[in-house]
Amino acid sequence: MAYGYWRAGRQREPAEFELFFRRCPFQGGFVVGAGLGECLAFLRGFRLRGPDIEYLQSVLPSTTDKAFFDYLRTVDASEVTVSSVPEGSVVFAKVPLLQVKGPLLVVQLLETTLLCLVNYASLVATNAARFRMLAGPDKKLVEFGLRRAQGPDGGLSASKYSYIGGFDCTSNVLAGQLYGIPVCGTVAHSYIMSFTSLEEVQPRTLKPLDSEEPVEFLPLAELWLGRVCQLLQVPCDGVNHGELAAFASYAIAFPHSFQGLLDTYSVMGSGLPNFCAVALALHQLGYRAGGVCVDSGDLGKQSREIRWVLRTCGAAFQVPWFETIPIVASNDISERSLQEIIQEGHEIDVIGVGTNLVTCTLQPSLGCVYKLVTVNGHPTQKLTEDTEKMTIPGSKVCQALPSVHEIKSHAQASLRLFSPAHLRLQEPEPYQVAVTEKLHALLVNMRQSSQ
Amino acid sequence: MAYGYWRAGRQREPAEFELFFRRCPFQGGFVVGAGLGECLAFLRGFRLRGPDIEYLQSVLPSTTDKAFFDYLRTVDASEVTVSSVPEGSVVFAKVPLLQVKGPLLVVQLLETTLLCLVNYASLVATNAARFRMLAGPDKKLVEFGLRRAQGPDGGLSASKYSYIGGFDCTSNVLAGQLYGIPVCGTVAHSYIMSFTSLEEVQPRTLKPLDSEEPVEFLPLAELWLGRVCQLLQVPCDGVNHGELAAFASYAIAFPHSFQGLLDTYSVMGSGLPNFCAVALALHQLGYRAGGVCVDSGDLGKQSREIRWVLRTCGAAFQVPWFETIPIVASNDISERSLQEIIQEGHEIDVIGVGTNLVTCTLQPSLGCVYKLVTVNGHPTQKLTEDTEKMTIPGSKVCQALPSVHEIKSHAQASLRLFSPAHLRLQEPEPYQVAVTEKLHALLVNMRQSSQ
Repeated sequence: MAYGYWRAGRQREPAEFELFFRRCPFQGGFVVGAGLGECLAFLRGFRLRGPDIEYLQSVLPSTTDKAFFDYLRTVDASEVTVSSVPEGSVVFAKVPLLQVKGPLLVVQLLETTLLCLVNYASLVATNAARFRMLAGPDKKLVEFGLRRAQGPDGGLSASKYSYIGGFDCTSNVLAGQLYGIPVCGTVAHSYIMSFTSLEEVQPRTLKPLDSEEPVEFLPLAELWLGRVCQLLQVPCDGVNHGELAAFASYAIAFPHSFQGLLDTYSVMGSGLPNFCAVALALHQLGYRAGGVCVDSGDLGKQSREIRWVLRTCGAAFQVPWFETIPIVASNDISERSLQEIIQEGHEIDVIGVGTNLVTCTLQPSLGCVYKLVTVNGHPTQKLTEDTEKMTIPGSKVCQALPSVHEIKSHAQASLRLFSPAHLRLQEPEPYQVAVTEKLHALLVNMRQSSQ
Repeated sequence: MAYGYWRAGRQREPAEFELFFRRCPFQGGFVVGAGLGECLAFLRGFRLRGPDIEYLQSVLPSTTDKAFFDYLRTVDASEVTVSSVPEGSVVFAKVPLLQVKGPLLVVQLLETTLLCLVNYASLVATNAARFRMLAGPDKKLVEFGLRRAQGPDGGLSASKYSYIGGFDCTSNVLAGQLYGIPVCGTVAHSYIMSFTSLEEVQPRTLKPLDSEEPVEFLPLAELWLGRVCQLLQVPCDGVNHGELAAFASYAIAFPHSFQGLLDTYSVMGSGLPNFCAVALALHQLGYRAGGVCVDSGDLGKQSREIRWVLRTCGAAFQVPWFETIPIVASNDISERSLQEIIQEGHEIDVIGVGTNLVTCTLQPSLGCVYKLVTVNGHPTQKLTEDTEKMTIPGSKVCQALPSVHEIKSHAQASLRLFSPAHLRLQEPEPYQVAVTEKLHALLVNMRQSSQ
């Protein structure tokens, strides 16, 4: 196409494309527009370099005029203007996310890259926002998707745009390092399974919080295990000693943030008694446990049972903070399974979502398109027989911000979606900052008016 | 976990993990295992560098022993051994794709990266193989998915592993440049729409194949358009002149590979008459057209109608090659829609698949897991109450190659799947090359025995 334009001497004709989607994903009513920052970074660096041009020469027909390749060496995006809704905006179907003006040949060449940068970013931000709206503002949402994303870079995009869409943190440590997203995670079953006996616990002592005198930790944990088993009426000989060793090792290594993964062997018969024993031993030395995790089974039901046990132990042993220990749950959580968990009642504090967040299982593509709307000042239209694919000719004037009414009725967008913390990933463009503040004020108003 | 192992002095204990999936994707019977090459490249370069360690120090508790970070500086994968099925093998559920042996701390750290590199690669290669099996060995399959992939790198993975799974080429030019995959593509509607009148055609002449004397091209095309309209009984005033201009410009630029995108305005009322006129004008000057494309509507039905027109024109104007002009079709093609097209009968030669190939819409994740099977020579097992998630303890002996019988009954794998062209992307490891030759011989035998 570029060669066709160049041969016809049309490469510098002014043209405008609009990037939009025809239908909202997930049978929903809105999209969280994202990817603008990466589009701008791409445009700033857009050039075809020597090896690129040599490659193009090798795949284009040998009859292609050599002067065309010299021309390509001069192409960049310096004459391209992009108008856009601000990063993280709520956007509706058929409204342009990007309006791209510039020389016909250049703006044509940008098509696939701009689509690639906006499509997945907006899709996963929207998906994250839907999880946030469902979970409510107070739950902690953790992105766990790296292992199921489209390669390492797909995983980074997933972490970044899940955060923009309203997640609190990621288990993708590189995303934490590169973008400043808070990182968090749980232990793997393999860590628990790698311990088979109490002999493997090293070191075996821990200093109490207010003393320099190390205490033998295992006898303390075993003492508490006996009491816990008695209280809960769990047979002590059904409790796995490798698991106890793993928990004790972890607690000695991280006394301020001990976490127990409960479902390696049996949640109620082994994992939970072992966790309570180690957490109570820690308590005796002045520390508080960080949380418990389950990664299989009926998450809602288990969370209620776990809370009951924590409450019972807290009351019996007079440890008031025990009943508030955060419960972390993950196991192929989807919008649908989360909805069921919520309907049935649960005690989960931290929700880990992987596969269904990053692959957007319900609809794994957004379907943005990039359509020519004017060339040489004349509106253009695709008048195909497939009426859904017809375009509206001419450049649109798009309102950057949906009104409060529109947000409420179409999107019921989560208020946390646009909290300042979630916006620090965006490009520091002055116009965006201004609009972001405006949007923030708008959402503060929404919150006040809905109270 | 790494800190826990290190604190317990267990970092160098010998351990083995297996990477496998529990169920085949797409309700199918096999997976094309892929990603091994990238795993090996990752392992060769695996090290934690200064800034990585500083970042880890900033996010781990301040009580973490400083000596641990010094230890991390020494960690690499030099003591890790990987056994694997060869790249591109047919693999079944619960059979290890990778067996990873080495020091406990190191092999634990590799979990997420290895899963990330194998999961999507194998999923998309499998998806591509399913499209190939459905389309049969003679159709040309083109990957069109970049704009819907998870960012630019997700798009590159999609192109690479679709090719390994049996596609013929990609529209992702960077994948062509980096991996040597053949590139091909079609024109966009915007190219057609950017032309509004015949005045815009520049240059206006074309040299015949066997002469240096340029000929005015437009009068020739217009002459043929009148004849074609009369033959097909299509009203000449319904034919779009901008489209004719776009086709003529393209033909003058690429006389050896002129393609017509037919569905910008009306396939039968404008696109096809314009295409035939330009292709017949090219024929008169000694050239052959490269193909026609449709990107909307009922692809099967349209392809039959188009073939009828091409055949009719070829017969009426005595141009025998006309009826064999390749028909390219794309429009959100899925396994299901392709199956319907095939059942209803079609004349498509080249099938472009984008979204449903690269996002694997039917099941957008493979769900490989990475489980500890031995530590210190002792088998380990996860004995959870969720019986599907229980693991089989101990190291497995896995047969690298499925037997011919297994391939036939479980997978009905396409013979083209393992053609030498599709294997040149793999790592040049001697053992792989050997096995690849063996596999190739096996498939040649299969082909012979099935005849």
